[in-house]
Amino acid sequence: MNRIALDLMGGDRAPEEIKAGAFMYLDELRKKPKDVKLLVVGLPDALKSFEQYSDFVELIEAQDYLPMDVKPTDALRRRESSMYIASTLVKEKRADAIVSAGNTGALLSCATLVVGRIKGIDRPALAVPVPTVKDFTVLIDAGANAEVKPEWLLQFAIMGIEYAKILGKSSPKVGLLNVGSEENKGTEREKQAYALLKEHLKETFYGNVEGNDINLGTVDVVVTDGFSGNIAMKTMEGVAKLISNTIKQEAKKSIDGLIGALIFARTLKKLKKKLDPRTYGGSFFLGVDGVVVKAHGNSDRLAIYNALKVATNGVDQGIIEKMKEAMNRIQE
Amino acid sequence: MNRIALDLMGGDRAPEEIKAGAFMYLDELRKKPKDVKLLVVGLPDALKSFEQYSDFVELIEAQDYLPMDVKPTDALRRRESSMYIASTLVKEKRADAIVSAGNTGALLSCATLVVGRIKGIDRPALAVPVPTVKDFTVLIDAGANAEVKPEWLLQFAIMGIEYAKILGKSSPKVGLLNVGSEENKGTEREKQAYALLKEHLKETFYGNVEGNDINLGTVDVVVTDGFSGNIAMKTMEGVAKLISNTIKQEAKKSIDGLIGALIFARTLKKLKKKLDPRTYGGSFFLGVDGVVVKAHGNSDRLAIYNALKVATNGVDQGIIEKMKEAMNRIQE
Repeated sequence: MNRIALDLMGGDRAPEEIKAGAFMYLDELRKKPKDVKLLVVGLPDALKSFEQYSDFVELIEAQDYLPMDVKPTDALRRRESSMYIASTLVKEKRADAIVSAGNTGALLSCATLVVGRIKGIDRPALAVPVPTVKDFTVLIDAGANAEVKPEWLLQFAIMGIEYAKILGKSSPKVGLLNVGSEENKGTEREKQAYALLKEHLKETFYGNVEGNDINLGTVDVVVTDGFSGNIAMKTMEGVAKLISNTIKQEAKKSIDGLIGALIFARTLKKLKKKLDPRTYGGSFFLGVDGVVVKAHGNSDRLAIYNALKVATNGVDQGIIEKMKEAMNRIQE
Repeated sequence: MNRIALDLMGGDRAPEEIKAGAFMYLDELRKKPKDVKLLVVGLPDALKSFEQYSDFVELIEAQDYLPMDVKPTDALRRRESSMYIASTLVKEKRADAIVSAGNTGALLSCATLVVGRIKGIDRPALAVPVPTVKDFTVLIDAGANAEVKPEWLLQFAIMGIEYAKILGKSSPKVGLLNVGSEENKGTEREKQAYALLKEHLKETFYGNVEGNDINLGTVDVVVTDGFSGNIAMKTMEGVAKLISNTIKQEAKKSIDGLIGALIFARTLKKLKKKLDPRTYGGSFFLGVDGVVVKAHGNSDRLAIYNALKVATNGVDQGIIEKMKEAMNRIQE
């Protein structure tokens, strides 16, 4: 059985939208039953009206929840919070996965210190598949660790490769995000990481890539620190908004623009969907000994529904076992 | 008189495209004469056919030029190169500005160590106006210094404010690029920079901004290290290509898509132009005691023409004097 723990209280729009997303997921389960159980963790009040799905849910009461601006250290002290309890479920093997739209740092703390890390991994990292001209690229770390060591970047690369394989890439290539393609580019950190990646990954390592390579799909996995990864992710969001905004303005300006925009609506919709973080719903914190899915803080029901699907797939595909095997291979 | 030194030999497509760009600029000068002189520095062969513009050019022979993969330290040793000689012209006040599409690190070395810095500036930074929903935001540092100190970020902010004013913003607001909006976000560097910016800029400092804020135009100046700045700039380029590519593919797929794309062509063209680095031609290395314009390494004639216009405007607007005054004010 696939057991998913849901933090009902995490997220800017919790618990209402989290609940609505869970209902979407459960409605689907009811129509097309699968061997899945949703462990919903929340304040007693928020747990109401889940009874209708009793075949597929287990309700777990929490007395506390973490606000969005919680400090990561507080996350570990507040053991009655929904996020902490959900993490404990994974730790105790009562759940296979946790889904939360709560504070990123808090979830990272709970994942690392409550659930625990896979052997050989120093820090879990956020892995996000981003759209490219061809299909997608796995960006890792997309925001978990603002500061990293060169050897962590190697670990991120190994996890990114496994993730890309799970998503269907047969022999993924890895690029190191840098400010130029030449070997000697970047800070001391990038230079050392370059040497490590070359030594351990051999021909799987493509070399340095630049910001424009991410969405061009030059490689299958882009490895970077969580600071640069976050800047890149958020910049994509900003450009997409700038473009959709400009198109809207133009459509208003002239009849040509309006007719063009109307006829072209389907394409624009597809594009927007491709670049909308909600489409992907949630991203994995890889390196944890349990499936951890971080949904966007601003998640609505659709995003939560998708995040629950992401978690289900992660468990179905045995993502944790694959990460462990990959780490064993590299340590031999 | 406004005297612009042009490095004829720098750039992937040098000298042909650099020359063609200079001709575009000179043709315009001939039609509408201004008090401008172009000091063209290049190998003797490349200087041919400039005679037709003798009223507006001075030709300076160089015996060497810097290849695009030159090491910054070599840039300072090869004193017969076109880039070095052009920098010397600015140093000796024989020119007001230098324009080069050559290696960024080499130009930064020449700017810093041949031309020299403005008092109070530790490191020159690359300042680029990027398009936003409203108008533009100055991104500084867009790629000159991969590693920075918190006090440099303050200097970048002061220069960015002056630049934004020159470009027409009456009371520019500054944001610090970070991985979250809260004060305690980022690495030690961002935390210290936040405190410095708050102390010295007072209400001109908006606080932390994220990657998506760049193109949304949340602030007028986005301050960051050259590593993150470069990643952000290049990511914008990649997203723009992804989008124009998707639109092209869709247009091919269906008659609806094709008609929509055709009618919508003007808007798409405008958008592409907005996001095309060639439109801006060149970016200023601010903090140098002379106008230094870095054109994209892959510049074609249009980009060089625009870079020469950027340099001319910089000199006309007294950008160096304004930077000096701003640094004096902050030091008082």
